[in-house]
Amino acid sequence: MRTFEIKEPDKGIEQALRDKIENLAKPKGSLGRLESLALQIGLIQQTFSPTLRHPVNVIYAADHGIADEGVSKSPKEVTRQVIYNFLNGGSGVCFLARQHGFELKIVDGGVDFDFPANPRLIDRKVRKGTRNYLHEAAMTAEEVDKAIQYGADIVTDCYNEGCNVISFGEMGIGNTATSSVWMHCLTGIPLVDCVGAGSGLDEAGVRHKYNVLKAAIDNYQGDGSAADVLRYFGGIEMVMAVGGMLRAAELGMIILVDGFIMTNCVLMASRFYPQMLPYCIFGHCGDESGHKRVLDFLGAEPLLHLGLRLGEGSGSVCAYPIVESAVRMINEMHTFAQAAVTKYI
Amino acid sequence: MRTFEIKEPDKGIEQALRDKIENLAKPKGSLGRLESLALQIGLIQQTFSPTLRHPVNVIYAADHGIADEGVSKSPKEVTRQVIYNFLNGGSGVCFLARQHGFELKIVDGGVDFDFPANPRLIDRKVRKGTRNYLHEAAMTAEEVDKAIQYGADIVTDCYNEGCNVISFGEMGIGNTATSSVWMHCLTGIPLVDCVGAGSGLDEAGVRHKYNVLKAAIDNYQGDGSAADVLRYFGGIEMVMAVGGMLRAAELGMIILVDGFIMTNCVLMASRFYPQMLPYCIFGHCGDESGHKRVLDFLGAEPLLHLGLRLGEGSGSVCAYPIVESAVRMINEMHTFAQAAVTKYI
Repeated sequence: MRTFEIKEPDKGIEQALRDKIENLAKPKGSLGRLESLALQIGLIQQTFSPTLRHPVNVIYAADHGIADEGVSKSPKEVTRQVIYNFLNGGSGVCFLARQHGFELKIVDGGVDFDFPANPRLIDRKVRKGTRNYLHEAAMTAEEVDKAIQYGADIVTDCYNEGCNVISFGEMGIGNTATSSVWMHCLTGIPLVDCVGAGSGLDEAGVRHKYNVLKAAIDNYQGDGSAADVLRYFGGIEMVMAVGGMLRAAELGMIILVDGFIMTNCVLMASRFYPQMLPYCIFGHCGDESGHKRVLDFLGAEPLLHLGLRLGEGSGSVCAYPIVESAVRMINEMHTFAQAAVTKYI
Repeated sequence: MRTFEIKEPDKGIEQALRDKIENLAKPKGSLGRLESLALQIGLIQQTFSPTLRHPVNVIYAADHGIADEGVSKSPKEVTRQVIYNFLNGGSGVCFLARQHGFELKIVDGGVDFDFPANPRLIDRKVRKGTRNYLHEAAMTAEEVDKAIQYGADIVTDCYNEGCNVISFGEMGIGNTATSSVWMHCLTGIPLVDCVGAGSGLDEAGVRHKYNVLKAAIDNYQGDGSAADVLRYFGGIEMVMAVGGMLRAAELGMIILVDGFIMTNCVLMASRFYPQMLPYCIFGHCGDESGHKRVLDFLGAEPLLHLGLRLGEGSGSVCAYPIVESAVRMINEMHTFAQAAVTKYI
């Protein structure tokens, strides 16, 4: 896997940023999470006047061999159907992207389908779906390298187009299953607490999903390192997101983190480069059981708690106006002195 | 007090609204709170294609006689200072209003200061601050009637200007104290659980505030009815908000509820007309202790949990994009049939 030059944001200006926020004309701390967000963004951008430019939501899409074991309520063909719904502007994240001015980049990293050429679908196919990790490694080392590089390249494109705040989403039937395996292997949290209903399994379905994943982990003979878990279990779109996130941190961009799957991609990315974490803003805590556990494990404070569990970047794009509010706060609010307000409050 | 003709939204279209939401191409329930919001807004507007028009944040401002007892960290003159900061566009709610396209209406209902005439400050002064309810009734029945009417009239103006979604905010040093008294008297929750730090009291300050309010309640000889509590404890801006909320419900408008003080105004308004509650969307749960308790008492599910405690309508305006997202969802998402997505998900 290629290396990334990621520097933790310099804390030299932290106290001066705090002072600026505390001198805004309001009771101390009364804008709560907006204040800590403004501090984080100021540190990422190393400025007292941060800006948000050309937000993009990148959706990496791919299929999972493990879907053949019935770990999802949805059949595999739903991956490609939903991609067409992205392209037609009709999916959940599409209206949110229009609302908040996000460009959508839809990336076919490994969907098990031959799409006709389409200028709005970015073709970076590594292979048509991963292998089934119940029986064999989902990916080869070469496929991992390619997926990391492809994922990073899209982010470089965004950066070159003026983007400094990037959200990552995904589409891939079976990817909550793979995420649960990553989460279990990287955190040691019992598998049963990592497995949830995904797109809508009932209790028996969740039990079956657990049994399949338990068997897959029992069969796994690797060394348990992050790199080996990444390769053995896949999936392609998740590996691409890891590459994308690491590249975004390398470029000093703000990373907006979506739901259960993307949070596990942050977990994976931070195993390679822990210093990527300060670039992450966690959009929401969703309804997939396990999401709260992995957020807590990362010490993350998600912005929204709206019971979302759609993926696609919907939760991170939905949270974007809060990020904008924090930036407006630090740029637009008057200080006590400017406002001639007695600083008792 | 004038009467209001408030009708609970007709539930005749509820099932058809639910069907529309469930046929959008996404796993059932996966847009969580956006789905329940879309249902609520569809019922308020009695339509399958709701719209949000000309949002307004009304800020009612007034002073409280009880502030003379040192129940707030801030001196009374901060009320008028912050009003100037509203008028100059520099306060917390101002940048949020600009961000989300809200008109701000600043209403002087009873600030203890003679403002020079200003076209952007709406003069509806009932009196210069309330009386000190540690010793006497804060308001007379006539003053209450006037405040209710003035509060309602502003909302009529908004409605006539095309507004169908209205947020209410407040400014008035001492008004968390008065809100705590309302909350205690109307819910029976022990006073100690209703009293908090307001704009930033320390532990001793909160204890003093509690002792003052306890003494005021001990001195109170009224019948404990909602109408009597409203009159005896005031304050003017809170009574105006009650009038404004009732008028908004009468006109079938969406009511965006801000923080601790406005939530207690909903509590009061709903004592007179319980059928106003379905028109309310609770913007956030803030950091003022007691806010969560009163929200729970009302069975409210606030949209945001960001630790805000600024007032001014900041929390309700900050939550507005979530309301917009719900409306876009029901209007813009494609159905399973339109999107040709297999309805397994």
